[in-house]
Amino acid sequence: MILAKVIGNVVATRKDESLEGTKLMIVRRVDAEGNYIEPERVAVDYVGCGIGEFVLCATGSSTRVEENKRNKTIDMAVIGIIDSIDTSGA
Amino acid sequence: MILAKVIGNVVATRKDESLEGTKLMIVRRVDAEGNYIEPERVAVDYVGCGIGEFVLCATGSSTRVEENKRNKTIDMAVIGIIDSIDTSGA
Amino acid sequence: MILAKVIGNVVATRKDESLEGTKLMIVRRVDAEGNYIEPERVAVDYVGCGIGEFVLCATGSSTRVEENKRNKTIDMAVIGIIDSIDTSGA
Amino acid sequence: MILAKVIGNVVATRKDESLEGTKLMIVRRVDAEGNYIEPERVAVDYVGCGIGEFVLCATGSSTRVEENKRNKTIDMAVIGIIDSIDTSGA
Amino acid sequence: MILAKVIGNVVATRKDESLEGTKLMIVRRVDAEGNYIEPERVAVDYVGCGIGEFVLCATGSSTRVEENKRNKTIDMAVIGIIDSIDTSGA
Repeated sequence: MILAKVIGNVVATRKDESLEGTKLMIVRRVDAEGNYIEPERVAVDYVGCGIGEFVLCATGSSTRVEENKRNKTIDMAVIGIIDSIDTSGA
Repeated sequence: MILAKVIGNVVATRKDESLEGTKLMIVRRVDAEGNYIEPERVAVDYVGCGIGEFVLCATGSSTRVEENKRNKTIDMAVIGIIDSIDTSGA
Repeated sequence: MILAKVIGNVVATRKDESLEGTKLMIVRRVDAEGNYIEPERVAVDYVGCGIGEFVLCATGSSTRVEENKRNKTIDMAVIGIIDSIDTSGA
Repeated sequence: MILAKVIGNVVATRKDESLEGTKLMIVRRVDAEGNYIEPERVAVDYVGCGIGEFVLCATGSSTRVEENKRNKTIDMAVIGIIDSIDTSGA
Repeated sequence: MILAKVIGNVVATRKDESLEGTKLMIVRRVDAEGNYIEPERVAVDYVGCGIGEFVLCATGSSTRVEENKRNKTIDMAVIGIIDSIDTSGA
């Protein structure tokens, strides 16, 4: 999984049927200090995230393990809202 | 998923049988401002996209979740036409 | 999928049994103008390609969707011979 | 698989249900000399690793092969604690 | 698949059970001339490779297609020993 920041959303009226009802968020990968380290990607929101929040994103087939997601054309999802990151012991 | 711009198409008469009837588009990944950030890739058109349009592309096994696509040699597809991107709240 | 040029082949007498009888090609990813943009990779030939040809390559599990390929240790394949690329409308 | 160093952990109260009870570690990929070569990623701990340890990480669907992990939204896991690396014969 | 050179091995006493009995090799991706082009990765040896040898490596789910490997946490494997590479016709 990667750390990311939610920076917006995408409107796509014409899209694959399996995506109906999903919320498509624009996310950017960040490092542990919150610095952007990759360009934008699009992830489906699984946890009710908001713009500006730091989140955890999963990619690939891991985003379709739930029965009701198995047939959706999804390869990236927001799967957690990050409360805190502790790297003090390293 | 990634943001991309459709910039052309590919003609390949000799190809894997499973690709018969598919429309092979040349796409280039873009950032949220529409700047190209990666070289060309080839994606199968699932939504009736046109050259010059900004689109949403999915990759990997997510592009084969539908029953009639399960046995196609496809690893990238255009799955949505982007109407707008809103990053104003970030 | 990616655009690539076939630049050679690999001989590997000792190999995973599932690869017996496959033709292992050296390919290099190219952009739409045919410029090399990545180092060499190895792809199994599914379409009867020749050295010097521009081809379409698929990666990952998409290369094992056919019944007789399901149990082969293949993660990249040449799946089409490119006749032409049209990016004139972009 | 990649070599990585465990450098911290993530707290995410609101997260995909399938992740309940997992330990989310911050890891950074390293080379064989232990130098960081990539920004942070998040991996689920499968082996009881500690901060500061050098570990082996797996990615993708390989992290969900066990029956009780099949339905978890996991795409990276710590799967081994590295005792030593021997590259003296190369 | 990629071209790689075997440069060492990893000892990991504490590891995911599914990896018991596997030989964990340190490999580095090379180009067709044998130059290193990526940092070290770890691959399970499927063919009896030795340190210093040039090999073919597969990644992802392709490394788990065999019945007895389906439940192993493996995402990279050495699947062939390279005898020769011929790029003379390109």
